[in-house]
Amino acid sequence: MNTKIASFLEERRPETPCLVLDLDVVAGNYQALAAAMPDSRIFYAVKANPAPEILSLLAALGSCFDTASVVEIRDALAAGATPDRVSFGNTIKKRVDIATAYALGVRLFAFDSEAELRKIAEVAPGARVFCRILTSGEGAEWPLSRKFGCEPSMARELLAMAPGLGLDAYGVSFHVGSQQRDTGAWDQALESAAGIFRDLAAKGIELKMVNLGGGFPTKYLKEVPTAEAYGRAIDASLRNHFGNRLPETIIEPGRGMVGNAGVIQTEVVLISNKSANDNTRWVYLDIGKFGGLAETMDEAIRYPISTIHDGDESEPAILAGPTCDSADVLYEKTPYPMPVSLAIGDKVLIHGTGAYTTTYSAVAFNGFAPLKAYYI
Amino acid sequence: MNTKIASFLEERRPETPCLVLDLDVVAGNYQALAAAMPDSRIFYAVKANPAPEILSLLAALGSCFDTASVVEIRDALAAGATPDRVSFGNTIKKRVDIATAYALGVRLFAFDSEAELRKIAEVAPGARVFCRILTSGEGAEWPLSRKFGCEPSMARELLAMAPGLGLDAYGVSFHVGSQQRDTGAWDQALESAAGIFRDLAAKGIELKMVNLGGGFPTKYLKEVPTAEAYGRAIDASLRNHFGNRLPETIIEPGRGMVGNAGVIQTEVVLISNKSANDNTRWVYLDIGKFGGLAETMDEAIRYPISTIHDGDESEPAILAGPTCDSADVLYEKTPYPMPVSLAIGDKVLIHGTGAYTTTYSAVAFNGFAPLKAYYI
Repeated sequence: MNTKIASFLEERRPETPCLVLDLDVVAGNYQALAAAMPDSRIFYAVKANPAPEILSLLAALGSCFDTASVVEIRDALAAGATPDRVSFGNTIKKRVDIATAYALGVRLFAFDSEAELRKIAEVAPGARVFCRILTSGEGAEWPLSRKFGCEPSMARELLAMAPGLGLDAYGVSFHVGSQQRDTGAWDQALESAAGIFRDLAAKGIELKMVNLGGGFPTKYLKEVPTAEAYGRAIDASLRNHFGNRLPETIIEPGRGMVGNAGVIQTEVVLISNKSANDNTRWVYLDIGKFGGLAETMDEAIRYPISTIHDGDESEPAILAGPTCDSADVLYEKTPYPMPVSLAIGDKVLIHGTGAYTTTYSAVAFNGFAPLKAYYI
Repeated sequence: MNTKIASFLEERRPETPCLVLDLDVVAGNYQALAAAMPDSRIFYAVKANPAPEILSLLAALGSCFDTASVVEIRDALAAGATPDRVSFGNTIKKRVDIATAYALGVRLFAFDSEAELRKIAEVAPGARVFCRILTSGEGAEWPLSRKFGCEPSMARELLAMAPGLGLDAYGVSFHVGSQQRDTGAWDQALESAAGIFRDLAAKGIELKMVNLGGGFPTKYLKEVPTAEAYGRAIDASLRNHFGNRLPETIIEPGRGMVGNAGVIQTEVVLISNKSANDNTRWVYLDIGKFGGLAETMDEAIRYPISTIHDGDESEPAILAGPTCDSADVLYEKTPYPMPVSLAIGDKVLIHGTGAYTTTYSAVAFNGFAPLKAYYI
């Protein structure tokens, strides 16, 4: 347990549920990633946690920012980033939002379709564009659909069109799936990217950048490789597929930057059984799927959990949230071992919750307020 | 298409995405339910849509309110309901929230476990309590887990304990599953309830109320039975199982009260394919799972959708939301037929979205604002 967060909880005794996030851990993650991948520029994925405290810290450390909307662009600029350090990484953008980003000075845009490329050409003339390609997502814990990216063959065609539309065909991006624990997952995508670079070069178009995306994991229950291990694996793949003509690279860590910096404190509201002869314990917390733990959807992310009773005998329990919604159950298919001494009113800590919690929180479902957060 | 909503959209041209809800439809639904079930008191399930405009309207019509939290209780009281018209229907309540509700005058509480019963006894002495029993949820479109309710055998024991704890053992509740299209679904639960009434009467405890819960559907794509059909089926079951000693009954419509009153207007942000030889159309809207359409989870609820191109040839498309989250896909397993003439920038109407949309909306995921709503 992070001692800074433990002291904060002990001294301030904030109302539950709340997230407490240690900014020093974020700074440490940034430095570890920068050291592990010295040739890559870091674009923090703002969507993971857009708290101004995090953005200012990262801006001061020299980070760039991957943004999903005009609001996120404005937040990054307000935190001190210059527009050349901002990428508009969403492949699904309204024309008016592209124009606003351009007016704010942003010159780097993602796309994965002809229609999007033409929108960018119309309202962001001369901008650098990179095309996202599809990857398999194998080895990732958070599901990756085919929602983003196009087949490499289409990426070739679209990047070849870009100069004729007045755009700078800048590179290729991909995403290997969130919470990716296989350091080799980048290899196949880099092979595709290198093929696109070669084909475009043959047409006289020199692509410059490979956006390696995110996917860098945070430690939940299973061990994850170190930042250095990712750096070494990716570096080897780059040299293997690009030889001596290494492209400029950028990475977009989100979960890997802030996930392990945060702890949610929650309280046990109720412990019950469904009948006298059914030993299944239901443990109801004051946070659930709609209060910030949306990533427990399909029990995809399994957070580490601790209580003051750790060390006591434990038995599996079904964990559920506080709302009147039967879908608001966190772990049921695979019940979670909880101390048998756990009691109503006890505090429960959910670790590794710095990413994808505060902003997933519902506005006011069942009248419950959005997740409160403290950045220390 | 509702002409009042159509006129509003035509004249006001609000920014998308937005929900427009016709209060006259809500009033009509209230009156239809009241007419179909003249012997039942209506407790509107506030969580379906807690807009003050809806609560005030229903309070004026004489509705009571089923609430999930202290915030919802305060909202109902602020809308003009007296505390005797409010039920604290969440079976998972913090002790402090039970005490606050009691201080506000609320005297009707749900429970489904001994621990909860004891909490109520401690801080809400003399209150009326009803025990929720488990039902199968068969025939419901929105999944119902075992999260709420206990086995009838346990309900017997707990209700028998209540008087000794200083509480008024008031009745039994159940929920047949949301969007329940089988009017017979109430029968089995009423049989269980009648058995509990008889057993408790034999112990000298006269239960008075059966809370029939919600589950009344709104019309999405499939036809749903009328309010009268539900009323007739439930009345027959009541007479069958309770004979001449009919209990007082209450119903808790949420979706059935406001679902069909609302229409979400959204805009097509992008239409694309993933490769030149793949005809699958991806249609990206400016609203998705995190902007209010959470009930498309597992494609559970299939909303009716219309565009200005209705009548043109249509082909199935994958519908997705605007966020940088690969889980933000609405209909993919069963693609949705959309006009081939649909274009970027076109408006799309999603019908039957008056319930469980505004409050499910995320605070600011990807920087997108929560769903805006107009109550007309």
